[in-house]
Amino acid sequence: MINMGGPEKLDQVHDYLLGIMTDRDMIQLPVQSKLGPWIAKRRTPEVQKKYGEIGGGSPILKWTNRQGELMCKKLNEVSKETGPHKHYVAFRYVTPFIDDAIEAMKNDGVEHVVAFSQYPQYSCATSGSSFNAIFDYAAKNKGIAESMKWSVIDRWSTNSLLAKVFADRIRTELNQIPEDVRHDTIILFSAHSLPLKAVQRGDPYPSEVGSTVQMVMNELNHCNPFNLVWQSKVGPLPWLGPFTDEALEAYVKKGKKNFILVPIAFVNEHIETLHELDIEYCHDLGKKLGVQNLRRAAAPNDHPLFIDAITDLVQQRLKSAAPGFQLQLVVQQLKEFEGKQLVSVTKEGLELPEDEVETKKREEDKTKYENLCKVMKDILDKKVVVSNRLVESPCCVVTSQYGWTANMERIS
Amino acid sequence: MINMGGPEKLDQVHDYLLGIMTDRDMIQLPVQSKLGPWIAKRRTPEVQKKYGEIGGGSPILKWTNRQGELMCKKLNEVSKETGPHKHYVAFRYVTPFIDDAIEAMKNDGVEHVVAFSQYPQYSCATSGSSFNAIFDYAAKNKGIAESMKWSVIDRWSTNSLLAKVFADRIRTELNQIPEDVRHDTIILFSAHSLPLKAVQRGDPYPSEVGSTVQMVMNELNHCNPFNLVWQSKVGPLPWLGPFTDEALEAYVKKGKKNFILVPIAFVNEHIETLHELDIEYCHDLGKKLGVQNLRRAAAPNDHPLFIDAITDLVQQRLKSAAPGFQLQLVVQQLKEFEGKQLVSVTKEGLELPEDEVETKKREEDKTKYENLCKVMKDILDKKVVVSNRLVESPCCVVTSQYGWTANMERIS
Repeated sequence: MINMGGPEKLDQVHDYLLGIMTDRDMIQLPVQSKLGPWIAKRRTPEVQKKYGEIGGGSPILKWTNRQGELMCKKLNEVSKETGPHKHYVAFRYVTPFIDDAIEAMKNDGVEHVVAFSQYPQYSCATSGSSFNAIFDYAAKNKGIAESMKWSVIDRWSTNSLLAKVFADRIRTELNQIPEDVRHDTIILFSAHSLPLKAVQRGDPYPSEVGSTVQMVMNELNHCNPFNLVWQSKVGPLPWLGPFTDEALEAYVKKGKKNFILVPIAFVNEHIETLHELDIEYCHDLGKKLGVQNLRRAAAPNDHPLFIDAITDLVQQRLKSAAPGFQLQLVVQQLKEFEGKQLVSVTKEGLELPEDEVETKKREEDKTKYENLCKVMKDILDKKVVVSNRLVESPCCVVTSQYGWTANMERIS
Repeated sequence: MINMGGPEKLDQVHDYLLGIMTDRDMIQLPVQSKLGPWIAKRRTPEVQKKYGEIGGGSPILKWTNRQGELMCKKLNEVSKETGPHKHYVAFRYVTPFIDDAIEAMKNDGVEHVVAFSQYPQYSCATSGSSFNAIFDYAAKNKGIAESMKWSVIDRWSTNSLLAKVFADRIRTELNQIPEDVRHDTIILFSAHSLPLKAVQRGDPYPSEVGSTVQMVMNELNHCNPFNLVWQSKVGPLPWLGPFTDEALEAYVKKGKKNFILVPIAFVNEHIETLHELDIEYCHDLGKKLGVQNLRRAAAPNDHPLFIDAITDLVQQRLKSAAPGFQLQLVVQQLKEFEGKQLVSVTKEGLELPEDEVETKKREEDKTKYENLCKVMKDILDKKVVVSNRLVESPCCVVTSQYGWTANMERIS
């Protein structure tokens, strides 16, 4: 269960921020190796203060473990033939890290891994960064894929059960709003923003968040006015808007007084719901603006339908986890990597033409091709299944600018 | 059937451009009343040249009439009780104009109008502009709504039949691509871009286009890699990217050679498909870049499933065309217009409290309130049905910055 994670204790905050600030998939800074640590250090006290105000730490681990336990319990019932099932938490910037999860799975003798992004909508900065970390690990740890078959769930923005969960969370809040103003309540879907530069590069996140919003409003039969707004901008560069706080202010100026905020791009409570939405907007800003009702829909957390949603997704992936023609697509792309023919596709599967690789090795930089072949062997020739979804991911394979090719470049 | 329209003949090009360049819903220019006409005049020859290259004019009218005829034929079969049905074309910048359509409907004694935006995804610049034009007409022509009941279809980006149509158009092109490279063909959904300023203001168009893309790829079972890109940028200001031509170039640089372009935000052929996609990209740019296959999926046009889609949408709207609680939402907003209580909601419908309006009149600018009351009478008190969808439209009602309130401001 892949996610960014959050510091459980205040003394983890610095290393957590350091991880974010030095991850070029997450954020690009000039002289990042110097500036990243400097920003992390400088921001630690203020971020610690915020975590202090929500009880001393992030509940992401607690929620993810609860979701994982409920999901596996259900999987053991509905999909006995693929069991027993066990969940592993794989965070990007805090323990338990992705590497920890892979090591633990190896030690437990896991046969089949479903690498399941807990971000419903794909962004290069979130899911993309975590999948790159998995590829990096595979590149450095030969054989890790030999004992385990790998499947991937990298995006699920239009999942109908997920839409039902959000719809139910919204209905719960609507019912708390007095009947005379209920129909005039604006549903504001609020998602973590991203730099405009990433939008312009073609990051699929804004489109995928938009599609979740449309699915949820269809599920609600368009019962109320709504809009999609963006939160949590940091730094001086332009980010995708309109921003949640500015939108609230503009609506109030136009006479609107009742709102429900919906965290549409995260599946459990975290600092951006508990502090930014609840404290900074619902409490502080609401008071300042004089709203009548400003409520926040809960994240999916342990909503029974949400457990059904993630159980279904994993079950489907376990069932369809056989290398199909889609895998060939990845191979095709690997074949064309820098114009070099590096793998061949046989009827049975994929094979590295060892001779040709040897020839290449002599011709080219040795280490580069050893690494490349190691990854290709691990990922393609053995037991790794690349899902359809991963294949289309602009960040992983398709969008040439920062796709699979980018992974290959990093690895090689 | 609402659309922007296109010049059928070269001598209509100037007035068409003039209409676009002076419409502040479509484009905002400094000193627009001077600069708009100047740009229109200056651009006329180059635009005429382009229309010359696609046969001397736009086929939008031809396609819209064909779609309307097929739709009405089908409606007369499947929805006899609401018939007979007749389509009227209502263009924004060329004849037959919106005003022409309303006049024609009045003369024909039409009882029930379904104002059907032919843009599946809502933008303030397209659907929003046309609905504003309808409101403007209603404000200037008292009684126009008295003899006709009005319903609205303002957005249908997640319509499942529409997704099936695009999926089928894509499959047709995929089948034309040699089998050995078919699975490595990138599906590039290409939509008309919009200024970043509009994105930042919260125009729902990018999200809604994204949701159509996700629906189509679900329908295709994610058979191929894909991405959403943006075309037709004009002027020096920043627009939403990545741009179609730059994306093609970047993919080719990364070794990709096979593409299908899909016009995802327009339902019939027009200058942007026939000239920009077919001539400038598929022919000229494709040759320059040395692609293997660069094909363009046809617009929905008269695809039988597309006729089913628009027939279903109209039939649903005719069936549900009764003022519901949603209408109260609009009324609520009108009531709060500048803090003035202007209408009341009764069990039977909506009533203007004449006395209070009279009082207001004495207190305030007379013309302003006469206009306001006229529109409210026409739109609310009589036979106009505002659909659920219109109600949520950020441009028409909800997004305070440029919503229904904006219409009211324009009218008053």
